[in-house]
Amino acid sequence: MNKTALYSGRMNRVLTAMAASGLDGLVVSDPQSIWYLTGIYNEPYERLFALYLDKNGEHRFFLNKLFNIHNSGFKEIWTCDTDDVIGTMAANTARKGTVGIDKVWQARFLIPLMQHNPAASYVLGSSCVDDVRACKDAEEQKIMKEASRINDICIERGAAFVKAGITEKQVAEYINEQFKAEGAERPSFTTIVSFGSNAADPHHEPDDTVVKEGDCVLIDMGCVKDRYCSDMTRTFFYKNAPAEYTKIHDLVRSANEKAESIIKPGVRFCDIDAAARDLIAAAGYGENFTHRLGHFIGQSDHEQGDVSSANMTTAKEGMIFSIEPGVYLTGKFGVRVEDLVLVTKNGCERLNKVDKHWKVIG
Amino acid sequence: MNKTALYSGRMNRVLTAMAASGLDGLVVSDPQSIWYLTGIYNEPYERLFALYLDKNGEHRFFLNKLFNIHNSGFKEIWTCDTDDVIGTMAANTARKGTVGIDKVWQARFLIPLMQHNPAASYVLGSSCVDDVRACKDAEEQKIMKEASRINDICIERGAAFVKAGITEKQVAEYINEQFKAEGAERPSFTTIVSFGSNAADPHHEPDDTVVKEGDCVLIDMGCVKDRYCSDMTRTFFYKNAPAEYTKIHDLVRSANEKAESIIKPGVRFCDIDAAARDLIAAAGYGENFTHRLGHFIGQSDHEQGDVSSANMTTAKEGMIFSIEPGVYLTGKFGVRVEDLVLVTKNGCERLNKVDKHWKVIG
Repeated sequence: MNKTALYSGRMNRVLTAMAASGLDGLVVSDPQSIWYLTGIYNEPYERLFALYLDKNGEHRFFLNKLFNIHNSGFKEIWTCDTDDVIGTMAANTARKGTVGIDKVWQARFLIPLMQHNPAASYVLGSSCVDDVRACKDAEEQKIMKEASRINDICIERGAAFVKAGITEKQVAEYINEQFKAEGAERPSFTTIVSFGSNAADPHHEPDDTVVKEGDCVLIDMGCVKDRYCSDMTRTFFYKNAPAEYTKIHDLVRSANEKAESIIKPGVRFCDIDAAARDLIAAAGYGENFTHRLGHFIGQSDHEQGDVSSANMTTAKEGMIFSIEPGVYLTGKFGVRVEDLVLVTKNGCERLNKVDKHWKVIG
Repeated sequence: MNKTALYSGRMNRVLTAMAASGLDGLVVSDPQSIWYLTGIYNEPYERLFALYLDKNGEHRFFLNKLFNIHNSGFKEIWTCDTDDVIGTMAANTARKGTVGIDKVWQARFLIPLMQHNPAASYVLGSSCVDDVRACKDAEEQKIMKEASRINDICIERGAAFVKAGITEKQVAEYINEQFKAEGAERPSFTTIVSFGSNAADPHHEPDDTVVKEGDCVLIDMGCVKDRYCSDMTRTFFYKNAPAEYTKIHDLVRSANEKAESIIKPGVRFCDIDAAARDLIAAAGYGENFTHRLGHFIGQSDHEQGDVSSANMTTAKEGMIFSIEPGVYLTGKFGVRVEDLVLVTKNGCERLNKVDKHWKVIG
């Protein structure tokens, strides 16, 4: 598919969603959403960078003269830092009716826009873009499979690198080097390596803790390749595997597999979450599974959409999200088993091929 | 000064500013502002993380159960991802009166809060914190001097590294390695190395361009040390220095020095900007100086506040900002000369000691 057709197809799906939501206009400000719809990537820092979509097709692109953007194909409205930037925007967007706002748009812009155009009503509108972004097209699926292939290679190297005297930080740095060596742009989030009781904190950051015999070794990692992210967790044991903990690892892996086994178009996310959660709760560890089962992923490690008890919507073909049950015993131990999955026509495809049974390393 | 006194002193200055602005409450959501006021740093990603300051001292700290925060000293309101997070916040913040909002707070939180509490009025309020943050205290000044000392060392190494066959990217990567070797945490922004006509774009990103004899070599770089940033630009010439361009370099350096010479408490930022801009305009290059003269800096490379024609406020003791005039000739050449300066009692102190005259390297 050529690029023009790609972007216009995406744009048409967003405009259809806008119409269904009754929006007169939509402010798209997430640089990833703008790139998704235009192929133009720009990091605006504190400056205004917004694509305003109009229901009648009178779109506007709000740009700062410092941005290196040319011939966007949209009507461009340029300002510089000393201009009345939001006054200019207010004069070029709906003065009444309903305007959808990107969920990441900052108050520094939104509040003055509301003050300039008080007769318009402002609602959260980025789902019009985010729901389209959630279903990955063929090109995106291909890139994300490659990002996960690199992740698979690098986690195995990372696990093999764990040896006597090594610290969490050293393993994390080694994994980051492997990402680079395999052609990834960077980690998609801070690589997590947690030994022993550190693994009981799901968001532990690698520190100078040295691995000890009998420790669990939790590695949660992902990379960015061609703008798209991977994300996976495996939990190993160093030198020996205490039976008390391998039993919990088996439970968490089974919960992961159970959830993955029911994924197909039409299944509710709350039911996918429950499939894993009920298994863990039945074994008596419900209180120790402290987070949602998964999150959507794409250009960001966390995109809009999650696999949780609060999400009553259903899976659709092309969606990619994580399945990551965990059990955390404060002060003692933690285990998480995470894959990315792609919803297919009749089920789902795991993007991570690395074995997920517990394994002794070192 | 002990930490408790440090944080309570900062908090009292913010509460005084809130009272002066007539705010009943203030939502502080910038993680750097929260750290500045509490010593607690947390990266919330898409989750709610907000310190709500109440004019009567009934402060609230809105936290997600996934955050690793304990005993904050504030009344903590905990939620998890499946809770009605904003409903909970709305029930614990002002239902009427005027609530100040952090400039970086996202629409995903602000719009639903407004819908929950329609009788309250919401205004931009983060200047109450940002104006306090703008004046660096003794501890912050010490750290920022150290960050600039490292930057001085590394730019000289970077310039010495430019040799036949080298690319912009290679020089930028070398500089980033030097930052690490000197104990900095990371670059404070993407290191800019621009050869020849690439320097005509002030925000050019290093690419595979190879240096050529007679090229200008513009290096704009900074590092983060103990959370605080440095930022400096120097422009060199490779092998030989075309007279047409050295003349412009002298002009830009003179504009930098002229602006720095008038900085002291009480001087308006627009007048500092004009001091440099008028000199450049008088020489016929006004149109080629396309950006403001400087920006504030601290925990972020760009903090609130700038040195521009639109800023009528005045310099205060303890403020740190950049002075960075530039001239850009599209397709040909660019030069920028940038220092950080600290406003002192009677003038200013340059944090960058590296010579800023043009110089031939290679």
